[in-house]
Amino acid sequence: MVSPLFTDLYQLTMMCAYLENGKREKAAFELFVRELPEKRNYLIFAGLEEVLRTLEEFRFTSEDIDFLFSLKMFPDWFLDYLKEFSFSGDVYAMDEGTPFFQYEPVLRIEAPIAEAQLLETFVMNQIHISSLIASKAARVYSVAEGKVLADFSLRRTHGVDAGLKVARSCYLAGFDATSNVLAGKVYGIPVVGTVAHSFIMSFESEEEAFRAYAKVFPGNTVLLVDTYDTVEGVKKAIEVGKELLEKGFKLKGIRLDSGNVKELAKIARKLLDEAGMSYVKIIVSGGLDEYKVKEILSSGAPVDGFGVGTKVGTSSDAPYIDFVYKLVEFNGKPVMKTSSGKKMYPGRKQVFRFEGYDVVSLNDEQFSGKPLLKSFMRDGKVVKSLPTLAQVREYAIEQIHSLPKEVLSIEERVSYQVNISDKLNRLYEELRRELLGGSKG
Amino acid sequence: MVSPLFTDLYQLTMMCAYLENGKREKAAFELFVRELPEKRNYLIFAGLEEVLRTLEEFRFTSEDIDFLFSLKMFPDWFLDYLKEFSFSGDVYAMDEGTPFFQYEPVLRIEAPIAEAQLLETFVMNQIHISSLIASKAARVYSVAEGKVLADFSLRRTHGVDAGLKVARSCYLAGFDATSNVLAGKVYGIPVVGTVAHSFIMSFESEEEAFRAYAKVFPGNTVLLVDTYDTVEGVKKAIEVGKELLEKGFKLKGIRLDSGNVKELAKIARKLLDEAGMSYVKIIVSGGLDEYKVKEILSSGAPVDGFGVGTKVGTSSDAPYIDFVYKLVEFNGKPVMKTSSGKKMYPGRKQVFRFEGYDVVSLNDEQFSGKPLLKSFMRDGKVVKSLPTLAQVREYAIEQIHSLPKEVLSIEERVSYQVNISDKLNRLYEELRRELLGGSKG
Repeated sequence: MVSPLFTDLYQLTMMCAYLENGKREKAAFELFVRELPEKRNYLIFAGLEEVLRTLEEFRFTSEDIDFLFSLKMFPDWFLDYLKEFSFSGDVYAMDEGTPFFQYEPVLRIEAPIAEAQLLETFVMNQIHISSLIASKAARVYSVAEGKVLADFSLRRTHGVDAGLKVARSCYLAGFDATSNVLAGKVYGIPVVGTVAHSFIMSFESEEEAFRAYAKVFPGNTVLLVDTYDTVEGVKKAIEVGKELLEKGFKLKGIRLDSGNVKELAKIARKLLDEAGMSYVKIIVSGGLDEYKVKEILSSGAPVDGFGVGTKVGTSSDAPYIDFVYKLVEFNGKPVMKTSSGKKMYPGRKQVFRFEGYDVVSLNDEQFSGKPLLKSFMRDGKVVKSLPTLAQVREYAIEQIHSLPKEVLSIEERVSYQVNISDKLNRLYEELRRELLGGSKG
Repeated sequence: MVSPLFTDLYQLTMMCAYLENGKREKAAFELFVRELPEKRNYLIFAGLEEVLRTLEEFRFTSEDIDFLFSLKMFPDWFLDYLKEFSFSGDVYAMDEGTPFFQYEPVLRIEAPIAEAQLLETFVMNQIHISSLIASKAARVYSVAEGKVLADFSLRRTHGVDAGLKVARSCYLAGFDATSNVLAGKVYGIPVVGTVAHSFIMSFESEEEAFRAYAKVFPGNTVLLVDTYDTVEGVKKAIEVGKELLEKGFKLKGIRLDSGNVKELAKIARKLLDEAGMSYVKIIVSGGLDEYKVKEILSSGAPVDGFGVGTKVGTSSDAPYIDFVYKLVEFNGKPVMKTSSGKKMYPGRKQVFRFEGYDVVSLNDEQFSGKPLLKSFMRDGKVVKSLPTLAQVREYAIEQIHSLPKEVLSIEERVSYQVNISDKLNRLYEELRRELLGGSKG
């Protein structure tokens, strides 16, 4: 469980200043993006469960307090306050797995302003990494034609937490498995694996290496065939496959990790089929992303599954999303910030989904579309039973399929239509005039 | 402390297969990159301390074993072996903060092959994130002309662990501080902060907000002046600065987070100086990276410090480094892999640094340059006293300054010269002929 010290210093100094100035009014902060990354037509909301579980237990330890004391920056009364701190507010959010777009709040925190302020960094950080990767992984899923997808990115995710969140977010967005054993333990995601080049190289011959592995995992062997010469490797895998068959086992698959995999997969399939091994799956890995997966499948290469790594695990073509967490209401009054040319809409909002377009409205408006923001936490306690990860995955897959076809394009930039309700637009104009008029000047 | 389940499944299945086949020979694996990312002329090695500390304590818990048991994949003897597992090998590495280049091993693990194999995922993951960010941060440091640099990236780093490693890696590569309070506690990095727009917006007027903050932190106030109109904001900050002065305090700084900061900084400096507040620092933040920092400073804008966020915290123009961890020696014999057109050099190596170029040699060769790989761990225990983070930072800064000037360019692609020793080249050619000759076929 992460410490509330996982925050920017200014959140703590602002907390202190709010309280010292008697500001205990309720604030509402909304998390949204103004613009999607250039290579994303839609984003997938993820990371909520971790946020909710953590907020329920968000406490400063006495070590944390000692550290803050050592900074010689905070008054004693504030450190005493932090000692007793727990989050007492409300959280509204979209369901994990929901596609979202520009200007749509995905999450809202309502709490005394000091509390809502403290949470900013942690909430943003966690929703960011999970949504970032779910959004990238969904693109791979959307072009994979139902082939098996496994997350192989752990060695190059940005650290330990990212490793876990990447595995979960990929699975949530339609992947089938991960190589990450810890993610298997923590989230119950199916774990898969093959062998590495080093294993093959540590034996006198490739065939000996294949045999040595198959002996130990006869019912679960996927052989890496490209350490020396790939076609020769396939032939040796077939030999070992025959030996397995004699013992009553079936070779599960072969893996291609380099070279012209489109051609090699065709050759391998032919050799395997000729040997009566149509049951042996062909797995491809190595520098894959949605573009390469699509290219490989479009070529007609008979690939059964993909091990997808670094480019998805770091969302390398869009390594961050510009989430912002903005104060939209304070003490019951809608607020917004004007300068800097960065637009935002004031007030607590709701998002309604219609077929092919959304409406962002004020929270008290009613539309016939499906409302996306729901109450998940009240007074610091989770008030909605959370779906299992398998349920989130099922929902996310259904949601991806229900997006307009053109939005699913991985090449074309397509803007999904997000309408702002008349009432929200009027409030925005009103506040803008007021601010430009200088009442806050 | 992370669990050894933080690994790819195939590391565990290979371990099991090595042991079942009686392979207990010593192996050497080296971590290196074949090619630097397009936008990097040098990389900075980081993350070693965390790796060493973790390897000393790398143990499977009984819960971990239970999970592996539940996979119904591993024989009982192997789970019994894992229960007793601890790392018994040796680690050689560069000092943290050392610049490195293509084909230079930054770290070598020597251990019974099953052990060295298990470590691959964790070691790569940790060296990757820390070196990735140190390499990006060094570029910012190299153009910052000694101005104060603070890491403000926490909300968009890839998760919790990345948040910590980013703060540490930025500091190591020349940054002065971080906004990340937890990183302050864990690593002793100076923590800094200002205020956010939400704080300003929660008060009836900007001036009231400034006053409210300054009251609580009179000796440590940096005011954010761009919530409404920046120039007006500066004027109000000056008023509050005067009030502070009457109470015997000095306003520490103002922060510009949007708009044309080059122009705004000049206007703000003039207004501050005219008010006799030449001591007030001007801090700039918002979408910064090395290019923007350089552009701002080149314009002559009187900026004293930068709050650098997302683009550095995600290394957005190069969000991963293609580190590989390759078997280079097995049972005393140098090995390598040939297919796929990806070159590697066999055998345990050393890297010698000369002025302006490096030599990669076999481990037993002697050159007059400075050897970069040192013994850090022997038989699973750290055998070298590790420098403090402040010492690592000092060393890294000195190293960055000692690089050839053209290599420090952030715009031009410049290749640092890495020579392969004759002996290593001969061994490579020998093994290549042998492999092509099919002795492994």
